[in-house]
Amino acid sequence: MAIHVASDTQSVDGLVQALRILPGVGIKSAARMAYHLLQHDREGAQRLAASLQAAVRNVRHCESCNTFTEQPICQTCADPGRDRSRLCVVETPSDQAVMERTGAYDGLYYVLLGRLSPLDSVGIADLGLTRLLERATDGVTEEVIIATSFTAEGEATAHILTQSLQKRGVKVTRLARGVPVGGELEYIDLGTIAHALADRR
Amino acid sequence: MAIHVASDTQSVDGLVQALRILPGVGIKSAARMAYHLLQHDREGAQRLAASLQAAVRNVRHCESCNTFTEQPICQTCADPGRDRSRLCVVETPSDQAVMERTGAYDGLYYVLLGRLSPLDSVGIADLGLTRLLERATDGVTEEVIIATSFTAEGEATAHILTQSLQKRGVKVTRLARGVPVGGELEYIDLGTIAHALADRR
Ligand SMILES: [Zn+2]
Ligand SMILES: [Zn+2]
Repeated sequence: MAIHVASDTQSVDGLVQALRILPGVGIKSAARMAYHLLQHDREGAQRLAASLQAAVRNVRHCESCNTFTEQPICQTCADPGRDRSRLCVVETPSDQAVMERTGAYDGLYYVLLGRLSPLDSVGIADLGLTRLLERATDGVTEEVIIATSFTAEGEATAHILTQSLQKRGVKVTRLARGVPVGGELEYIDLGTIAHALADRR
Repeated sequence: MAIHVASDTQSVDGLVQALRILPGVGIKSAARMAYHLLQHDREGAQRLAASLQAAVRNVRHCESCNTFTEQPICQTCADPGRDRSRLCVVETPSDQAVMERTGAYDGLYYVLLGRLSPLDSVGIADLGLTRLLERATDGVTEEVIIATSFTAEGEATAHILTQSLQKRGVKVTRLARGVPVGGELEYIDLGTIAHALADRR
């Protein structure tokens, strides 16, 4: 569906199209956003443009754990106080932050930044499985804790990771099923997550 | 609620905050958008930044009808084929486009770019009522057709515009109530709108 405003507003049309790259934003929302910015918040629009450019320019992946960082190695990986024998695999930096907030974990992380999702064509290669396998068999890691979500896709990801890691003799545990089936880790209360961590199997 | 990712990712945090200026985007959506862009569509993020800047730089308001345009006067206002005796007042360029697509109107427009909304603190001054009154009493306009939405706010806007215009001896009509009460003009089928236009009162 094309958006029709006046025919001499290529910049508006271009902005509407550009906004559609945002997840969950269709043509109507994009038009509403564009009008809102142009009418009520041009300063915000310029700030957003600058933030997008800064993020694209500065944000890279931690060479060790794959999370977003502005340094070669993120602060968590660089922290000498962390227990390097344990490696917790999470889907996103948000999930990593949730684990941190439980206060129940002081090991390291590996952030998949995605999970198996045939619909979105996210396959095993996209998960950086090779780097994770290298990491898990570095002689320092003694246990890999799989903390992907308990959704169908998160479980499928956990299954494949577990198989690949066990084949290489790595000890693999999974957060206990204290997390409700179908639950996104990000929305679960911290006590439940702490409990699931203690009961990992 | 603050978003916590790793503490050395100011650029990510900044992007999340900047995305929240978009209408309907809360902290969770903003974080999801930021991660999506950084992980899967950095090119799109750069395009969006450029589009925002181009729109802010190029888009102005038509000096005659107030719609978005990149020229001093928009194409519709500049079109010598339009009937200058009729002036249709709409809320947004989207609504203007809907009127155009009915093929039932060949007059000119005045685009409010907003409507009375005490909650969003959009008052009479923001609607550019003074410019509309000047326009309606320019000696060329014979009829002002109010085509604001049939929502509570759109009706309130119509009421105030009608009063102000009639006080100055301007003939004012309103789209007929063929448009369902509570309906947003943008979502109504074209036949209904064409009918409501013919039956204006
Ligand atoms: Zn790291
Ligand atoms: Zn115009």
